[in-house]
Amino acid sequence: MAKIKTKRERVKFASDNVTGACPEVLDAILKANDEDRTPYGNDELSKNLQNKFSEIFEKEVIVFPTASGTAANALALSTMTPSFGNIYCHRLSHINVDECGAPEFYTGGAKLVNLDGINGKIIPEELDDSISGKGIVHHTQPSSVSITQLCETGVAYQLDEIKKISEVAHKHKLNIHMDGARFANAIVSLNCSPAEMTWKSGIDVLSFGATKNGCFAAEAIIFFNKDLVGNLPFLMKRVLMKRAGHLLSKMRFVSAQLDAYLSNEVWLKNARHANAMGKKLSQGLQLNKNIKLAYPTDANEVFVKIPKNIIDQFNSHGYKINDEEWENKAVRLVTAWNTDPSDVDSFLNIIKS
Amino acid sequence: MAKIKTKRERVKFASDNVTGACPEVLDAILKANDEDRTPYGNDELSKNLQNKFSEIFEKEVIVFPTASGTAANALALSTMTPSFGNIYCHRLSHINVDECGAPEFYTGGAKLVNLDGINGKIIPEELDDSISGKGIVHHTQPSSVSITQLCETGVAYQLDEIKKISEVAHKHKLNIHMDGARFANAIVSLNCSPAEMTWKSGIDVLSFGATKNGCFAAEAIIFFNKDLVGNLPFLMKRVLMKRAGHLLSKMRFVSAQLDAYLSNEVWLKNARHANAMGKKLSQGLQLNKNIKLAYPTDANEVFVKIPKNIIDQFNSHGYKINDEEWENKAVRLVTAWNTDPSDVDSFLNIIKS
Amino acid sequence: MAKIKTKRERVKFASDNVTGACPEVLDAILKANDEDRTPYGNDELSKNLQNKFSEIFEKEVIVFPTASGTAANALALSTMTPSFGNIYCHRLSHINVDECGAPEFYTGGAKLVNLDGINGKIIPEELDDSISGKGIVHHTQPSSVSITQLCETGVAYQLDEIKKISEVAHKHKLNIHMDGARFANAIVSLNCSPAEMTWKSGIDVLSFGATKNGCFAAEAIIFFNKDLVGNLPFLMKRVLMKRAGHLLSKMRFVSAQLDAYLSNEVWLKNARHANAMGKKLSQGLQLNKNIKLAYPTDANEVFVKIPKNIIDQFNSHGYKINDEEWENKAVRLVTAWNTDPSDVDSFLNIIKS
Amino acid sequence: MAKIKTKRERVKFASDNVTGACPEVLDAILKANDEDRTPYGNDELSKNLQNKFSEIFEKEVIVFPTASGTAANALALSTMTPSFGNIYCHRLSHINVDECGAPEFYTGGAKLVNLDGINGKIIPEELDDSISGKGIVHHTQPSSVSITQLCETGVAYQLDEIKKISEVAHKHKLNIHMDGARFANAIVSLNCSPAEMTWKSGIDVLSFGATKNGCFAAEAIIFFNKDLVGNLPFLMKRVLMKRAGHLLSKMRFVSAQLDAYLSNEVWLKNARHANAMGKKLSQGLQLNKNIKLAYPTDANEVFVKIPKNIIDQFNSHGYKINDEEWENKAVRLVTAWNTDPSDVDSFLNIIKS
Repeated sequence: MAKIKTKRERVKFASDNVTGACPEVLDAILKANDEDRTPYGNDELSKNLQNKFSEIFEKEVIVFPTASGTAANALALSTMTPSFGNIYCHRLSHINVDECGAPEFYTGGAKLVNLDGINGKIIPEELDDSISGKGIVHHTQPSSVSITQLCETGVAYQLDEIKKISEVAHKHKLNIHMDGARFANAIVSLNCSPAEMTWKSGIDVLSFGATKNGCFAAEAIIFFNKDLVGNLPFLMKRVLMKRAGHLLSKMRFVSAQLDAYLSNEVWLKNARHANAMGKKLSQGLQLNKNIKLAYPTDANEVFVKIPKNIIDQFNSHGYKINDEEWENKAVRLVTAWNTDPSDVDSFLNIIKS
Repeated sequence: MAKIKTKRERVKFASDNVTGACPEVLDAILKANDEDRTPYGNDELSKNLQNKFSEIFEKEVIVFPTASGTAANALALSTMTPSFGNIYCHRLSHINVDECGAPEFYTGGAKLVNLDGINGKIIPEELDDSISGKGIVHHTQPSSVSITQLCETGVAYQLDEIKKISEVAHKHKLNIHMDGARFANAIVSLNCSPAEMTWKSGIDVLSFGATKNGCFAAEAIIFFNKDLVGNLPFLMKRVLMKRAGHLLSKMRFVSAQLDAYLSNEVWLKNARHANAMGKKLSQGLQLNKNIKLAYPTDANEVFVKIPKNIIDQFNSHGYKINDEEWENKAVRLVTAWNTDPSDVDSFLNIIKS
Repeated sequence: MAKIKTKRERVKFASDNVTGACPEVLDAILKANDEDRTPYGNDELSKNLQNKFSEIFEKEVIVFPTASGTAANALALSTMTPSFGNIYCHRLSHINVDECGAPEFYTGGAKLVNLDGINGKIIPEELDDSISGKGIVHHTQPSSVSITQLCETGVAYQLDEIKKISEVAHKHKLNIHMDGARFANAIVSLNCSPAEMTWKSGIDVLSFGATKNGCFAAEAIIFFNKDLVGNLPFLMKRVLMKRAGHLLSKMRFVSAQLDAYLSNEVWLKNARHANAMGKKLSQGLQLNKNIKLAYPTDANEVFVKIPKNIIDQFNSHGYKINDEEWENKAVRLVTAWNTDPSDVDSFLNIIKS
Repeated sequence: MAKIKTKRERVKFASDNVTGACPEVLDAILKANDEDRTPYGNDELSKNLQNKFSEIFEKEVIVFPTASGTAANALALSTMTPSFGNIYCHRLSHINVDECGAPEFYTGGAKLVNLDGINGKIIPEELDDSISGKGIVHHTQPSSVSITQLCETGVAYQLDEIKKISEVAHKHKLNIHMDGARFANAIVSLNCSPAEMTWKSGIDVLSFGATKNGCFAAEAIIFFNKDLVGNLPFLMKRVLMKRAGHLLSKMRFVSAQLDAYLSNEVWLKNARHANAMGKKLSQGLQLNKNIKLAYPTDANEVFVKIPKNIIDQFNSHGYKINDEEWENKAVRLVTAWNTDPSDVDSFLNIIKS
């Protein structure tokens, strides 16, 4: 018993991917399990996702559900980037650092051009300066831009920042991708509509993350730009998914998760809660004068600089905080859809005494 | 209501992947959802799979769970086959025909050498004759052999057949892979142990299928040959999974399925039922003198030649039988863990009248 | 001295790639070496190839010179075939058997679908039957057809045969490639124009071989179909060459070879001689009643079945004849632009006595 | 006449790859063309390269001749770097900037990690700091280091610099590659032995460049580290070459170039002359107080900052100097084995008046 409790505490705040699924998503799985259905995403639930997402995004979009965020990112980028292409991204970006080269694998060897940016975010001017070599046979060719929202420092791109980056991308005739692993948290943070944060700000393709915010394993690649699908036949995108082993036979159980997640504002409700807990945690930590915020807490990720002795104090209570992993020796703490206010309080109490 | 009923009947017997998960697997998902856990397969459930499978196979094996059978096959083959390698397989094999080139994608362009075999099964002599070119720089290099158990005609390889094929493979220093998408059904059909059907018969790597037989999306790559893992560092196999987007963050929900599936003989119980239903269906169909078996019914797949007018009769009741898809204009009908005897009876009744 | 002579005889008739360059090509190299020039094919000689080939083919063509026939084939196919594509070819074809998987490497894992054909040539009916799966997500997608002229049995496709195969390819919306490693020998054999044997018969892309027929290392990829270049930007083809290491810095020395080869009918003169020597050799061998032609001698390749004791007789004179390599235990003997009639006589004299 | 002169002057100093072959290499080609020979590098000349290079490097080395420097680099790196590997290199390095992603293509998608270094050279400390992530499944894996000698600013690594970088690489169990496109010029600059600049300083694999310094198209991949060849079977390296289209059938003409190049110190003689001309050009330019060296002139590449009006003056005489291409708006001028002292004088005279 005690052992289990220790274990639970250990992973709390480690990431939002330590959570399970929220009740609504679990119910949807149970319901989808009632009888036999056509496989490979040809069931009614899966087909209906097209409408569901189109409604949410106020635009007819094209949707491919997947069970993996890495797959969503890499497949999305592979439709926008030839093997001899450049993908411009922040040097800290998940696609560059944490996917073991998935974009390179799926594109057949594209180059991820690293940008320094500020606070984890790409800066339009640096992007503009970096795009070069077009039409010169010796150089890999500028092809796409990718930004992460929330970005890797937990900070959210503001709408005008996204717009300016998109403008640079489009000026150079590149497509722009958003890695929305924490899409819902960003939406809540900006208090804007999904449309505003994506195609209305110039985004062409989105990796819509749902796993971290209340699903088991459910993501979606969303195309806003019809021409992208026009250039590369629609079917071929599914072929790529099949070829990579990401077209699950019982795809309906991924679709069921997404369906429930998008219904009745479950996704927003979960994110609102996670962000509120993030704020509570961030404010609580800042009460300690030895702890400093490394980046603003825009949503559910709190980056703080904590002295070694305080880290040791936390870890002696079963947490596993690692100060080696992030830039500037910052520590990352993440709240989630299921973080209980008392979880935050217990954590903060450790350093109160 | 009526609409739903029609839909259900439509997919019955179309494949065993139209089913959902069995109660035990569903329970395991619910249970695994109780609290937070370490991600990426570092949770207790996932780690314990190693022991669970080692017990089942009477040997210390190395296990990588995945959510996709195509991924399991392609990843397994990519550990045994360089980009310039030959994979010897039956021309009808799933890896050759139905995975949109996944083995080619994961290996970086290996060649699938097609064998004609007999009744869907590879013949040792033909395999032996086909393996050539070793050490000649102009030729792709013999690297691995893959057989499917049950094979694509629903027939099971007998133990001595597997042994003879393995001997040929090993004589040429090739590794041998078994695509066990319907592994449980084959085990029940042969009435042998998992060890006997695999490493005791020379198999080096297995794609262990569980999705079709009662899971949502759960497969496992199982290495019996320590040297295979020795040559290529252990970590690197996980790297391949991560890189391909198949290392799910909430991997514990895949592991939970496998854990429940392997516990209390659930997997064998499910397969026994499916095979029994296959036998019932096969025997029932053969009572009609216009219907002929195309291949023996060894397990849960029934391949029959049915005259066009009888097919039309079935389809007028909502089934979707397609006589174009398979060799020899045979029709494939598949029973599953959840096939009700009355489902078979209803189907057979159509042609009784 | 004697040692060198033995060596020469040993390789005579082994292949036409044992030869060096003809005097005209050698002169061109010397001439191109007179002063400095712009690198990477931007010199006058290289640019002029476009016109030179367009004249020869009576059509404005697009030309990419390379130093390697394997590269020419693989690069050509990679512009017509996505990674998830099928390339339909004869099972004996060079691209399938003798290039160590280069088409798979350059396409990123396309599938070479093997056809049996007759006498080494693809049969339109078999091709038509084999093309399937279009639009079905589980199957690799029909993309291109490749024929070899002369084919691998030394036989030449007749114009109407090429036309029929092209019609099948185009009916299915596939592009068709000709591997013209022995293009000149085939032209002389058919006594037709280069235009007639290619685009007038439906060919979309040609690998124009020159190395075997009098150059050091010079081939060219020739696009007849403007749309192929239209779909994939022109530059990108050069990018592929650069990326693969086939855009030589001193490309002018490849261009110089092709320029001289195409001038003053050098290429046809060389091929006429090689074919005449092939005929002489073929007829001489057939005088021996123990030797049988395996395939008709259409040009400069002679395929014969020779009893073991006669092979031993040849080899005791320093030749290295191998009866294991080809189908039907046939032996391949190849004449070239530099085969002396006395070479043929010396060879035939061995079995006269 | 005048037209040709203008053309010649235009490319003079643009690069050392605008030159042709030196007389000794040309003679070797003529000589190798005397009679028929075994193809694919199985001729005596090619086989003898192994000894020739082993002698030059005072060690038994393993040699693969190629016709392309990009291919040499990419093939070399692909033997040291898995698809999920990191190659650490300078951000200005040719493999990173000027090969259109060839290393990514040949490795199947490795990541080139860019280092800033100083003056175009990698700094051991920065390298050491950058190598991380080993054994962590989310990160691409440290695999190899590549340095260019001469580096991209024309500067030569000193022996102790190479040693320190090798030590860092080997400390992390990475292999180290040297891109020796201007290997001879560096040897002359350091006045050391080939052994000292390579394996005695820790280099594992070398791309030995010969094209720029007096050949038509001849490079060689040289393995110093037997274990590298031991791990990956020897044959497989040739398979990779064949598969990529770089195993030329008439390989003997590449070997002949290398053979002549290495004989009688031709390579050193050529490089000595080129470097002397580089020095003469560098010193002459520095006499003009408006022209500043951007990097030291260690060998045959002169990087200078030249005011726009002086550049215009040069270009009005037919030169094509581009100040956009290099860092810091420096201009690169390159001398070669065939640069005449009067070429340098004519160039300098333009700004004297």
